[in-house]
Amino acid sequence: MRIGEFGEFELIRRIGTFLPGPPGDVVVGIGDDVAVLNVSGPEYLLATCDAQVENIHFIRAATTPYQLGRKIVAINVSDIAACGGRPKWALVSLALTPDTGVDFVDGLYAGMQEEIHAAGASIVGGNLSGIRGEIVIDLSLLGTVSPECLILRNGARSGDLVLVTGTLGESRAGLELILRPELEVEQEAGDRVRARHLTPGARLREGRILAATGSIHAMADVSDGVLGDLGHICRASEVQAEIWPESLPISPECLRVAEVARCDAVQWALSGGEDYELLFTADPRRVPEIRGRLEAETGTSCHVIGRITGKGEAVLVRSREGMSSDYGRGPAGWDHFRAG
Amino acid sequence: MRIGEFGEFELIRRIGTFLPGPPGDVVVGIGDDVAVLNVSGPEYLLATCDAQVENIHFIRAATTPYQLGRKIVAINVSDIAACGGRPKWALVSLALTPDTGVDFVDGLYAGMQEEIHAAGASIVGGNLSGIRGEIVIDLSLLGTVSPECLILRNGARSGDLVLVTGTLGESRAGLELILRPELEVEQEAGDRVRARHLTPGARLREGRILAATGSIHAMADVSDGVLGDLGHICRASEVQAEIWPESLPISPECLRVAEVARCDAVQWALSGGEDYELLFTADPRRVPEIRGRLEAETGTSCHVIGRITGKGEAVLVRSREGMSSDYGRGPAGWDHFRAG
Repeated sequence: MRIGEFGEFELIRRIGTFLPGPPGDVVVGIGDDVAVLNVSGPEYLLATCDAQVENIHFIRAATTPYQLGRKIVAINVSDIAACGGRPKWALVSLALTPDTGVDFVDGLYAGMQEEIHAAGASIVGGNLSGIRGEIVIDLSLLGTVSPECLILRNGARSGDLVLVTGTLGESRAGLELILRPELEVEQEAGDRVRARHLTPGARLREGRILAATGSIHAMADVSDGVLGDLGHICRASEVQAEIWPESLPISPECLRVAEVARCDAVQWALSGGEDYELLFTADPRRVPEIRGRLEAETGTSCHVIGRITGKGEAVLVRSREGMSSDYGRGPAGWDHFRAG
Repeated sequence: MRIGEFGEFELIRRIGTFLPGPPGDVVVGIGDDVAVLNVSGPEYLLATCDAQVENIHFIRAATTPYQLGRKIVAINVSDIAACGGRPKWALVSLALTPDTGVDFVDGLYAGMQEEIHAAGASIVGGNLSGIRGEIVIDLSLLGTVSPECLILRNGARSGDLVLVTGTLGESRAGLELILRPELEVEQEAGDRVRARHLTPGARLREGRILAATGSIHAMADVSDGVLGDLGHICRASEVQAEIWPESLPISPECLRVAEVARCDAVQWALSGGEDYELLFTADPRRVPEIRGRLEAETGTSCHVIGRITGKGEAVLVRSREGMSSDYGRGPAGWDHFRAG
């Protein structure tokens, strides 16, 4: 069977089954976005990697090397943020075609350096390789977290509310404008959503503040789409959840682009992916305090978008009043091998 | 200018110049094969990454996924070995075409798992991505080393002898047989050199024993070819070296393949690359003890192949008696962007 039929997440599960259980110094191993490792120091080590592949994640004509550099760092920082951690050191592995301009490499490193510096981390090494086909930029990011601040995917509890920072769907709206340059929207809205796609920000401070509240049960960043990433939380926590489509935070700019593109902004918010917001669950009684503290310390708002309903592992999309929705179980989020 | 004209190592130097100096917790940063990081524990953290790119590093028809899995681990373990370290945790980033068979992934992980287990480490995470062109397998390996056992490239001193473990050139001989299947050599010789290319071993125990002698001034693994890797040591140490071609350890099997292929085994030994032997320098007075201890504890022999001659950064190939050699300065080793 080909992996295109098999699917990305099924393949990850399969890989997990034939690797042995992790040794004692591995707190969290394969299957999560971030590995958590015990280095016998005061803090745990966090390790994650994420790639940007030409013509899968980016098109060279539609992004600058600088933007690409910022993005590859931000998406990795976002994974560390979702654990409540602090990024420290990055390794950059590039596979480049010989015809790549030196200015491409210069721009890429300028973007990476700016974003890694803003995250309080540094580039400490890497690897350069040739490739004949398409460029691959692979970044591994190490971070640290104190054991009492570590938040994982697997702590969601029945009765928890599901919250998300910021807004959803804008990155997907930006992609739509990039793929369909003939669409006409107001400059400001267009610039905003394109920037959200090309140079997403990671919610690093927010992640640390949320973790420090001691009230977050499970957290992940929204990379595959809120439906897919809540699904990861549910499987890891062995719980079921519902998402309330009418509660999804969608910006006026995203709604405007969806209108012009004749697309469904709710669908974008559910499974467009690449939002890099933080998705988390918490006891309903603690939610007002969490929201207040996050907004006071960072200016970032967060919204309740659903709840953990009980045992299981599915995510249902239905209205808060229990009405079923046209979105049903919806698509499961971005799959690298099935996406066109 | 295109990176193909610029060259791999010039590009690495360029990148190094526009990144800021490393912060205090980075013991060794960009430019070395391995980053050395202070995690406030009793040991330093080591971090390295290396990739295998289809049609650059491997041809799918000429290797099994299992062999490829073993190789991607071994080449990273080799980098940790060359620091005197101990591998601990690996992240695997795969960019796969949708038509890749699930059995390819199964075989790849079986090979990686076997080799990582043998090295005393484990796979703790990674990333899966699609790609349209050629497969990329990228592995990041973390390890640890006690500060007193850490060996770097930059400690070579004038007067040191240059030594290498095992034999050189066999991997290149194996590649020749793979690229030219019409060549006829005795089965045993062919199998040996092909295996050396497809499933190289890392000198992990040897690295730790050499480091523990306290007598090694500089060490690197031979991935680019002994000429290229000694060049890295010389640049990092600001010294000049000479390699004695008549002293290079070349096996009868390698000589036989070179004879059949009408190639020069000495050239293969100098710059064929992918030998994954350990190349190191030491005070001449300590060399007999080092060689004896290494052979007694591992059964692996090592050979004196040259010496550090003084300040500078060049590597000259000339006979031990000071006669100049046809190899002159020779090619500088494998360059990913210049190689066909």
